[in-house]
Amino acid sequence: MNKNYYAILMAGGVGSRFWPVSTADFPKQFHDMLGTGETLIQKTFGRLSKIMPKENILILTNECYKDLVLEQLPHVDAAQLVLEPDMRNTAPCILYATLKIQKINPEAVVVVAPSDHWIEDEMQFAENLRYSFDFCLANDSLMTLGIIPTFANTGYGYIEYDKLDTRAIKKVKQFREKPDYPTAQKFLNSRNFLWNAGIFIWNVQAILKCFQDFQPEMYALFASGIEVYNTSEEAAFVRENYSKAENISIDYAVMEKAQNVFVLPATFDWNDLGTWGSLYDKLPKDAQSNAIVNAQTILENSSNNIIRTQGKKLVVVDGLEDYIIVDKDDVLLIYPKNKEQDIKRITNLAQQLNK
Amino acid sequence: MNKNYYAILMAGGVGSRFWPVSTADFPKQFHDMLGTGETLIQKTFGRLSKIMPKENILILTNECYKDLVLEQLPHVDAAQLVLEPDMRNTAPCILYATLKIQKINPEAVVVVAPSDHWIEDEMQFAENLRYSFDFCLANDSLMTLGIIPTFANTGYGYIEYDKLDTRAIKKVKQFREKPDYPTAQKFLNSRNFLWNAGIFIWNVQAILKCFQDFQPEMYALFASGIEVYNTSEEAAFVRENYSKAENISIDYAVMEKAQNVFVLPATFDWNDLGTWGSLYDKLPKDAQSNAIVNAQTILENSSNNIIRTQGKKLVVVDGLEDYIIVDKDDVLLIYPKNKEQDIKRITNLAQQLNK
Repeated sequence: MNKNYYAILMAGGVGSRFWPVSTADFPKQFHDMLGTGETLIQKTFGRLSKIMPKENILILTNECYKDLVLEQLPHVDAAQLVLEPDMRNTAPCILYATLKIQKINPEAVVVVAPSDHWIEDEMQFAENLRYSFDFCLANDSLMTLGIIPTFANTGYGYIEYDKLDTRAIKKVKQFREKPDYPTAQKFLNSRNFLWNAGIFIWNVQAILKCFQDFQPEMYALFASGIEVYNTSEEAAFVRENYSKAENISIDYAVMEKAQNVFVLPATFDWNDLGTWGSLYDKLPKDAQSNAIVNAQTILENSSNNIIRTQGKKLVVVDGLEDYIIVDKDDVLLIYPKNKEQDIKRITNLAQQLNK
Repeated sequence: MNKNYYAILMAGGVGSRFWPVSTADFPKQFHDMLGTGETLIQKTFGRLSKIMPKENILILTNECYKDLVLEQLPHVDAAQLVLEPDMRNTAPCILYATLKIQKINPEAVVVVAPSDHWIEDEMQFAENLRYSFDFCLANDSLMTLGIIPTFANTGYGYIEYDKLDTRAIKKVKQFREKPDYPTAQKFLNSRNFLWNAGIFIWNVQAILKCFQDFQPEMYALFASGIEVYNTSEEAAFVRENYSKAENISIDYAVMEKAQNVFVLPATFDWNDLGTWGSLYDKLPKDAQSNAIVNAQTILENSSNNIIRTQGKKLVVVDGLEDYIIVDKDDVLLIYPKNKEQDIKRITNLAQQLNK
């Protein structure tokens, strides 16, 4: 395994669209969303550790999830955790983690990867990632893996690449925000638009150069701590300074400004498990297309439901179609699948009830 | 309070139509079905103890519910429990309990009352019961309280009384089994038919005379134990002999054969809480006619449901009408109210799953 391969695993999200399974106390990435026996972060860690030394995988998350991470990834050393004392978007924590890696290994190439997505074909993922790593070892470029769209999804950002670029790794023309439906259809038909899955690859020199160029203030803030990174004084420095960083995503802060951005159209399947609907798509179904996770069921006149309990609870249903049925200790949700966008509103109502 | 007033509280039923709330391990009478803060047996015991000394109330139940009874009725002495070692219908246990009472007090008048019904107007109940007790102190008659029917219910037995009898307490012509619908309508229109609520009143001499006359074998069986009743040897005698008794109801064994049967049309409301539907009728409802027991709720586009959890669980529902939603530790039931007669079948399926 190449000792220069590193990963920054993004594990600070809250996954509010999966309430009541995912909560601020116990977000999506720490759940076994598909009933495979492993949580999403365990799956993702396992996928990455086939490609690089385990100790080269940093886990970037909020301080409050430290215990959850160490519990679910028992072989991870506390030094591999990069803990945000405050909620910030992705740019500050990626810069901070990158500086820590650079101090250890200035030759490092790094993949930034979400911890709560689903990738079935781990072989293809490994191949795509190694190919990108090697490109970034040889080039001071920012790379991303783009997902070939299968329908006109309005929920994702898109990456437009140069249509005339015949190389495997293509020059990016621009990042595009979540489109409306006609625009998404146009993107789909153009065939040179990919979904932005939030997977980035670069060597540490290249990305730090971009931070210096496009976010000089943020770079100065975090560079001022270089002396103490990976020492016992690091925590105090971060607690003191982290909240001063701007709340901005890596996309806005760097990717959309840089000129040396490249994309590899991914050859693996991918699902962001971003909604109950996308989770339902990935789950195995019974003959009536019910997807059942962690439950025993007696279902009559019921189809296309997604049913999930915590243990192996018996769920008896008659006459429901296209419902999300989620049972937890403190919450039971019985909600139409096609209204999943309302769940965030329900979550707020629920929080008010508990006040 | 009259020291001659006694009660036999019938608490051996299983309440299988209320699965999954009511189970063989924890039947209906031990649940707070209406969310009042008291279980049905506690309510019934409280109602009776306003009329008679607490120690005159015997609780007749299966051996396996002994701990539940003592837990829910902590002021009851173990000597007040009449425990059936085997499941038998009502005649054997009523005979056995009556003999025990007679041995203590040959002047006793006894009410036999189910422990799992609902009576709202406890004042009227007390008045009706005292009136019947006094009738039975003066007469060797078998009495029953009949419920004035409010609709052509095919789920109850009926009591036909002599239409020409102008007294408050009327001579019974005959007991009638659960009728078909046209017959129930005829009963309703005749105005001299009452629902049989299983509430009986008599003095111990009168009922024992009837057992002697109509069930001589059963009488001989239990009379052979008179020496040991209310002593330390009673348990051994009962374990030895109880299973020899015929499995027959008091209605068939005695009431339908006796000629000295009288009925008082009850002036209190009554509900046997026999089905989810009848329970729903008794529960308070929200503006959308949802009946909620032990739950917090966020209900949208949902009406006429009955929702019950064990704690104060939050239940979020969108788009359900006329459903039974019951959440327990090990079972979640989401079932149309108008299919409640299928719940027994579901219970059997569930038991097979757990084998």
